Amino acid sequence: MRGVVMYTAGDVRVEERDDPKIVEPTDAIVKLTATCICGSDLWPYRGIEPADHQVMGHEYVGVVEEVGSEVKNVKVGDFVVGSFVISDNTCEICQAGFQSKCVHAEFVAQTIGTQAEKARIPHADGTLVATPGQPEPELIPSLLAASDVLGTGWYAAVAADAGPGKTVAVVGDGAVGLMAVLAAKQLGAERIIAMSRHPERQKLARYYGATDIVEERGEEGVAKIKELTGGLGAHSVVEAVGTQESFMQAVGATRGGGHLGYVGVNYDVKIPGIELFFAGIHTLGGPAPVRRFLPDLIQLIWDRKIDPGKVFDLTLPLEQAPEGYKAMDERRATKVILTF
Amino acid sequence: MRGVVMYTAGDVRVEERDDPKIVEPTDAIVKLTATCICGSDLWPYRGIEPADHQVMGHEYVGVVEEVGSEVKNVKVGDFVVGSFVISDNTCEICQAGFQSKCVHAEFVAQTIGTQAEKARIPHADGTLVATPGQPEPELIPSLLAASDVLGTGWYAAVAADAGPGKTVAVVGDGAVGLMAVLAAKQLGAERIIAMSRHPERQKLARYYGATDIVEERGEEGVAKIKELTGGLGAHSVVEAVGTQESFMQAVGATRGGGHLGYVGVNYDVKIPGIELFFAGIHTLGGPAPVRRFLPDLIQLIWDRKIDPGKVFDLTLPLEQAPEGYKAMDERRATKVILTF
Repeated sequence: MRGVVMYTAGDVRVEERDDPKIVEPTDAIVKLTATCICGSDLWPYRGIEPADHQVMGHEYVGVVEEVGSEVKNVKVGDFVVGSFVISDNTCEICQAGFQSKCVHAEFVAQTIGTQAEKARIPHADGTLVATPGQPEPELIPSLLAASDVLGTGWYAAVAADAGPGKTVAVVGDGAVGLMAVLAAKQLGAERIIAMSRHPERQKLARYYGATDIVEERGEEGVAKIKELTGGLGAHSVVEAVGTQESFMQAVGATRGGGHLGYVGVNYDVKIPGIELFFAGIHTLGGPAPVRRFLPDLIQLIWDRKIDPGKVFDLTLPLEQAPEGYKAMDERRATKVILTF
Repeated sequence: MRGVVMYTAGDVRVEERDDPKIVEPTDAIVKLTATCICGSDLWPYRGIEPADHQVMGHEYVGVVEEVGSEVKNVKVGDFVVGSFVISDNTCEICQAGFQSKCVHAEFVAQTIGTQAEKARIPHADGTLVATPGQPEPELIPSLLAASDVLGTGWYAAVAADAGPGKTVAVVGDGAVGLMAVLAAKQLGAERIIAMSRHPERQKLARYYGATDIVEERGEEGVAKIKELTGGLGAHSVVEAVGTQESFMQAVGATRGGGHLGYVGVNYDVKIPGIELFFAGIHTLGGPAPVRRFLPDLIQLIWDRKIDPGKVFDLTLPLEQAPEGYKAMDERRATKVILTF
């Protein structure tokens, strides 16, 4: 099969890879319908993380081609959406809703690599969710988004305790930030402040439910959020950038007793304990337990109540993955979908 | 009146200070019955924080001697317990239960200094709580504990989401850690693991409800907690030390999706963002909103359901405050009560 391999930073190739096979009785082989490039794929691309002939990709939708003998919840022919973290969905941690910390957790990005025609998905019953039927083609991008970017933005909004009566501030206008805006709206937030300087993304943020746009960053951004919230700060803040500055901006924008949800941090972020302490806020972060939300997200998409797929602004065939990486690296695209 | 002043690190004196007077109509003057020395008072004593002729003390119980014209909830003659942070208890932040982040928040330690015969308490209605009557003398230490050390330990346990069915690990066997053990027990925790190497404090921890003692620290301590919890980590972890090592020990001891409550950090603690991220845990910290818990804590003490006062292991008259500081600094005492 054809699949993406990153030889080293900046050097992405599409080449022949072995077809995946069932290894464990809990595995499924999925023939992918679409996959995509994640903001986090740019870390090795830019040399921030090491890359040495690494298979790439962790977002995926497709049709089940083969299942192991113990797989019960999905069957051959099912259209499925999977989480970017493998989970058994039965252990105590999964049952508490934290499937990304499952005792069998495994990152699809590191060992499987779904920027490819097919993928072996371990713990298929606990990782994949079948859609109610074969989807209309226009639903594919949205279903794909559920696999990570929507699931992650949704988790960020839940972690920030977004809900009725709440003012939610979203730091970051990348795909995850935009999905957090969508999620905050769905969760019933009263006011949604998108922090963005990018006119096109501001437009999309407003489309997804942002009521206010703040262009200022850092301390000025914090001051602006305070000004908009009677001096108190936002009830709920989503951090969807992951730099030192953005993290501290998010801390500063959260009111005392408020909630900060964060879904990615760079390796060099060091949080000053004393600042976090005196902020007096709740925090919740980590790789999103997408599997917790998948059934509901699939239904919302199926019922055309949300259209997260709009976050993809460039569609390329898998063979042109290198151009997709380049477009995202150069910020010509927010998020690239790869098709077959 | 007589009161404690810290001239500089290590130099504590009891000397004449001006009697406090009503300044604002929301003030009350309290004649103190007892006060005490806090672990945090040792920071300037040891030169970790600056001290320059600074009034000391922020824990207090006593009898209301005078009230301003707008004070309604307490009256002259009432026996009162107050929080170590001033709050109006009416603003939006207070109403959400985060009185230590009140829009009128003021630290008693910095401006008032309750290691003295009397104290002016601003926002008396929102800061003080009257006991049901004049307390029996043996209740005084416990009521005094509610002012900070019990309230803080209680908050830490609440922040860690301690409750029925939960395994709670407490990092730190100081007075706050011991109070967190007491709180976890009251909140219905199933298992309470005290991390302590000190035989006397282990004994007190068991008295307050600890079911297990772990003597290991750092990574070994984390490994031991994992061993005791089926490899998962504790549901709830209280951090009651405040060093880099103890904070990261607490992070490591918390299971994915679990809760970490922390109630003090040193100025030099830097939390590696990536470690906190991949831990996938809830955190809540900050100066405890003691005022939220005071009515319930007073009632529990009044009904003799809890006896936090046992945490005081040295009683001295105010005039001997310097010896009290010395005893705590040299770890001859866990917590010193000062009487009149």
